Amino acid sequence: MKSYVLKEAPGFESLDLVEKELGPIGPHEVRVRVRAISLNYRDLMVAKGAYGTKGFQPVVPASDGAGEVVEVGSAVTRWKAGDKVAGIFMQTWLAGPPAASYAASALGGAIDGMMAEEVVLHEDGLVAIPAGYSFEEAATLPCAAVTAWNAFYGSGALKAGDTVLLQGTGGVSLFALQLAKAAGARVMITSSSDEKLVRAKELGADETINYRTKENWEVEAFRLTDSRGVDQVVEVGGGGTLNRSLKAVRYGGTVSVIGVLSGTSGEVATPLILGKAIRVQGIYVGSRTMFEDMNRAIEANGIRPVIDRVFEFSEAKAAYEYMESAQHFGKIVIRV
Amino acid sequence: MKSYVLKEAPGFESLDLVEKELGPIGPHEVRVRVRAISLNYRDLMVAKGAYGTKGFQPVVPASDGAGEVVEVGSAVTRWKAGDKVAGIFMQTWLAGPPAASYAASALGGAIDGMMAEEVVLHEDGLVAIPAGYSFEEAATLPCAAVTAWNAFYGSGALKAGDTVLLQGTGGVSLFALQLAKAAGARVMITSSSDEKLVRAKELGADETINYRTKENWEVEAFRLTDSRGVDQVVEVGGGGTLNRSLKAVRYGGTVSVIGVLSGTSGEVATPLILGKAIRVQGIYVGSRTMFEDMNRAIEANGIRPVIDRVFEFSEAKAAYEYMESAQHFGKIVIRV
Amino acid sequence: MKSYVLKEAPGFESLDLVEKELGPIGPHEVRVRVRAISLNYRDLMVAKGAYGTKGFQPVVPASDGAGEVVEVGSAVTRWKAGDKVAGIFMQTWLAGPPAASYAASALGGAIDGMMAEEVVLHEDGLVAIPAGYSFEEAATLPCAAVTAWNAFYGSGALKAGDTVLLQGTGGVSLFALQLAKAAGARVMITSSSDEKLVRAKELGADETINYRTKENWEVEAFRLTDSRGVDQVVEVGGGGTLNRSLKAVRYGGTVSVIGVLSGTSGEVATPLILGKAIRVQGIYVGSRTMFEDMNRAIEANGIRPVIDRVFEFSEAKAAYEYMESAQHFGKIVIRV
Amino acid sequence: MKSYVLKEAPGFESLDLVEKELGPIGPHEVRVRVRAISLNYRDLMVAKGAYGTKGFQPVVPASDGAGEVVEVGSAVTRWKAGDKVAGIFMQTWLAGPPAASYAASALGGAIDGMMAEEVVLHEDGLVAIPAGYSFEEAATLPCAAVTAWNAFYGSGALKAGDTVLLQGTGGVSLFALQLAKAAGARVMITSSSDEKLVRAKELGADETINYRTKENWEVEAFRLTDSRGVDQVVEVGGGGTLNRSLKAVRYGGTVSVIGVLSGTSGEVATPLILGKAIRVQGIYVGSRTMFEDMNRAIEANGIRPVIDRVFEFSEAKAAYEYMESAQHFGKIVIRV
Repeated sequence: MKSYVLKEAPGFESLDLVEKELGPIGPHEVRVRVRAISLNYRDLMVAKGAYGTKGFQPVVPASDGAGEVVEVGSAVTRWKAGDKVAGIFMQTWLAGPPAASYAASALGGAIDGMMAEEVVLHEDGLVAIPAGYSFEEAATLPCAAVTAWNAFYGSGALKAGDTVLLQGTGGVSLFALQLAKAAGARVMITSSSDEKLVRAKELGADETINYRTKENWEVEAFRLTDSRGVDQVVEVGGGGTLNRSLKAVRYGGTVSVIGVLSGTSGEVATPLILGKAIRVQGIYVGSRTMFEDMNRAIEANGIRPVIDRVFEFSEAKAAYEYMESAQHFGKIVIRV
Repeated sequence: MKSYVLKEAPGFESLDLVEKELGPIGPHEVRVRVRAISLNYRDLMVAKGAYGTKGFQPVVPASDGAGEVVEVGSAVTRWKAGDKVAGIFMQTWLAGPPAASYAASALGGAIDGMMAEEVVLHEDGLVAIPAGYSFEEAATLPCAAVTAWNAFYGSGALKAGDTVLLQGTGGVSLFALQLAKAAGARVMITSSSDEKLVRAKELGADETINYRTKENWEVEAFRLTDSRGVDQVVEVGGGGTLNRSLKAVRYGGTVSVIGVLSGTSGEVATPLILGKAIRVQGIYVGSRTMFEDMNRAIEANGIRPVIDRVFEFSEAKAAYEYMESAQHFGKIVIRV
Repeated sequence: MKSYVLKEAPGFESLDLVEKELGPIGPHEVRVRVRAISLNYRDLMVAKGAYGTKGFQPVVPASDGAGEVVEVGSAVTRWKAGDKVAGIFMQTWLAGPPAASYAASALGGAIDGMMAEEVVLHEDGLVAIPAGYSFEEAATLPCAAVTAWNAFYGSGALKAGDTVLLQGTGGVSLFALQLAKAAGARVMITSSSDEKLVRAKELGADETINYRTKENWEVEAFRLTDSRGVDQVVEVGGGGTLNRSLKAVRYGGTVSVIGVLSGTSGEVATPLILGKAIRVQGIYVGSRTMFEDMNRAIEANGIRPVIDRVFEFSEAKAAYEYMESAQHFGKIVIRV
Repeated sequence: MKSYVLKEAPGFESLDLVEKELGPIGPHEVRVRVRAISLNYRDLMVAKGAYGTKGFQPVVPASDGAGEVVEVGSAVTRWKAGDKVAGIFMQTWLAGPPAASYAASALGGAIDGMMAEEVVLHEDGLVAIPAGYSFEEAATLPCAAVTAWNAFYGSGALKAGDTVLLQGTGGVSLFALQLAKAAGARVMITSSSDEKLVRAKELGADETINYRTKENWEVEAFRLTDSRGVDQVVEVGGGGTLNRSLKAVRYGGTVSVIGVLSGTSGEVATPLILGKAIRVQGIYVGSRTMFEDMNRAIEANGIRPVIDRVFEFSEAKAAYEYMESAQHFGKIVIRV
């Protein structure tokens, strides 16, 4: 079978399609024919060796993939041939709070990922895809959607009526928008593009803020809550925007740090954290249980991921380029 | 001004309309012209002296009422004349978990309630009614709706995709139905009346179970979850049904005990609680913060209470009789 | 190697010592030379076929055992030969809240247990024993101590200054006593034996209640809190005592149902649950994470288990008999 | 009666002792004869107009005071003359999570404080002092001790066996040390003074780090946990030290931001928050319920505050000077 591999940094220029033999599967393992893959901003960082602390490592990229079980090990109880499954981001984070050991099992980073025609995974490292989902749709979930879910339900609990502030229209933000609306929340979202804001509105956003025209988007968000502050910010910017998020959030509110798009470090006004008793919560994807809980929410509410564009397996490099160009609204998928 | 008073037990036959003088208000008090009241099953129990442990006490009945602020004390900061407000069930439960002392401030039970043309309450004991709500609608909220909210968010946290099982179509169950659907949950509801189940379906119920035809409704509910069990049961029956709820709920699930309609005591199979690691959580209405949070959910999701029938202030006794007949689907309101 | 096996119900009379061959270990498996085993009341129930819903099943008994790693599979990363380890009660419950699937991996019940000279377990199904612990001491922890820990920290959180009420001086209660005292709580404990109460006092109990002389122990416990009620009851009785526990606990308090010693069913006054907003929480042992957290507490506070008596491996049946006689104060251990 | 007042910024030079008449008390008010006051670093900031966002405001200073009830209003139920009480920091934060409105009722800042011979407070704004406590001891609790308690139990839950890292030997850190030890935790503490570290060790600290000799105290703390990381840091430094705390804390751990001693802003590495799924939690003193819970812990564990020095009422300015000199180890108290 064929598999992509990132051979050397920097960037995805070294992405190469190689012939590979996976060998016999162990008693608790499952062979999956991958049918679709999706890209995340993290995949660009991995390719550049800018993800994690170890620098670039050769790896089969992509955390996100879905496919069909084609063979199960002798002791497997969770799956049978023909089951439609998606891999979980960290293969060993099954349940409970985060723990240090899980990161060593992250697909497409710490270990080989999904950008291959076939993968062999432990039976515990998979979930059933939502009923009625295509493989392309299912492939969008493992990283971005689970991250959004974890931000809402992992350490706090989104309530109907809460106001959520989302930054930009990237993968996590769009899933956060859909999940928050399904949960009865009020959603504000920012973007530099009025066109993308119109599309966010169509997806259910209650309020949109163009941060080109309203540079102080955190002030605008605060104002839109009648100066109560938003209940939760899903912070994708990181260093460069955290301070603004602290201003937008209400007394006792939560800022979920899920990304570092605006920089890996920034000035933070600690008196704001203290004086408003804010929780700043790091969110690093999520557990299998979260994925399964989220899938129930997806099914119960008929949520469909926004897919911007589908590439063929042979066009993987083009998919990376398109991701890097940052024009997309919704997920970038590769069909196998 | 005129006020109803329950003069002597048993029952609401002793309900009497009397002339009353409330006197000057204190610095932190607010005078409210009551414009609407709603009845709860609890009001029948209070009238019968079957509520709480003290037996019958003479009292102005009704916990639930909404109206207009007509006068504020010299130190009041939360309200001004003209504000539209509803009283909170326990006047001193403002925030946080339940505490023993709060019960002594329950309207229409421990202290005089809302069935009067005017009431004087501490400024802390009121909330603003949801935007766009009529007084009749707002009067339905303080007891039943806040109880449902507390069951979902008070000690646990309802997630989108959770399955909620509701017993019957009383006030708490219908609010629970609407709040759960707004929060993206899947709702099952039972009734002995197919007609009421049709109406529940119109309100959003995903599954309905007629417990006349399916006597073992808990088995049916369990079956409908593919034998996973429901995530939460809102237990209105109490002694007579708790055991069935334990069977319907999933491993690690929650049974919120909010009522005692089916009896004040019953056999409970403790191994079920232990072996499925179930939480059985007593829910006794809720705090002002819960009421305010719920109102945000109501506004964000356009929830409207189901009102069965509106009586005039002079027809209070008829309203009690109608409540006792148990024909209603939705709240019974008295317009002042 | 030699292994005990429960061949047929009823009771432990069928306990037999057989020669057994475990065969080669898998890549993620670990061979452990068992050095000590401890008994729980549950082992009596398993022997009688009174545990779980399937009736008697032939099985190697005992959930609790500790020993030395003697061989590790090719892919094992968590252990090396010579490591001192104890098995976890449910081999697949590693972290997070309870889930239905875990029960199928309970040692000495659903699957073969620790009453053998050697066992082969997945590397994930073991924890390191506390520093300085003997194998005899470590063997006491997996069921009783982890249950007590879960009651305190699994779904709620014991705070310093909380009052905990313990029923009797069985294994869970004694660990609960020691863990609660280490955590700065105030502990009340009941027994029918003044002698056992003296020993409980020596272990740190603040208040002791002899339920022979004070039959209404729940009233006495309530009185000892200045009528505030205790914060948490560790309910080992179940059906026959739950109602009393509901009376002893404070408004908003917790009753952790961990046992069924006094019966599998009982009359429960649901209005107490509702009116005092009590949480009744089923506790079924606990996860590996809980075990590890507890071990840190054991080490930080120098907790030593109370061992009543140590039997030789050949005396297993006598150990069961001694357990059944219920004279012990502390754990019954079998040395291998 | 006599009362101190901060008349004008900057600094406590403007502190003046004036004659004052408090007038008759309201129905829910209580007159307290103040018997002791304690100072906090916050009192220096208030005097300098550096606390909060409004700059300097004339005010009776001091949040912390204890005394005797000498008169109660006609409707008061919680107190009677002779009761020994302490004021709560924010007079309206009785229970539950923090809310924006509470800050407006902070003693000795937003409203007049305790540095007076007599104060009049709402009956809700007081707690009973711990049994056996002197007024001097009780006066140390409202700000520093409740802050430490809130850090441990307010939004997370300290468990026995957790490792807590404390910065310096100020008021909050010393209470945190004592409360954490009472709760069975392991405590690490830093200081620039070996002498103070010796005293911290006498109070129970398990590990001490002199940050003069070990400049990278966060690396040393991490090392002392066998590279697991500490469970919780009580961050008193703020801007200048938060980043180090993020390095010391374990995956999934908590940094409680309670102070800004090292600066009001600082560079924060957001990838650490994200990648280790850290919670950074702002802690702003705490509620009355927390104070009462803490008092139970104090009583159950015989905790006594560390008092460095007691000044006479006439020496208030000298007490401020001594606070500013930062030589103290333990609380600075003023006896009235």
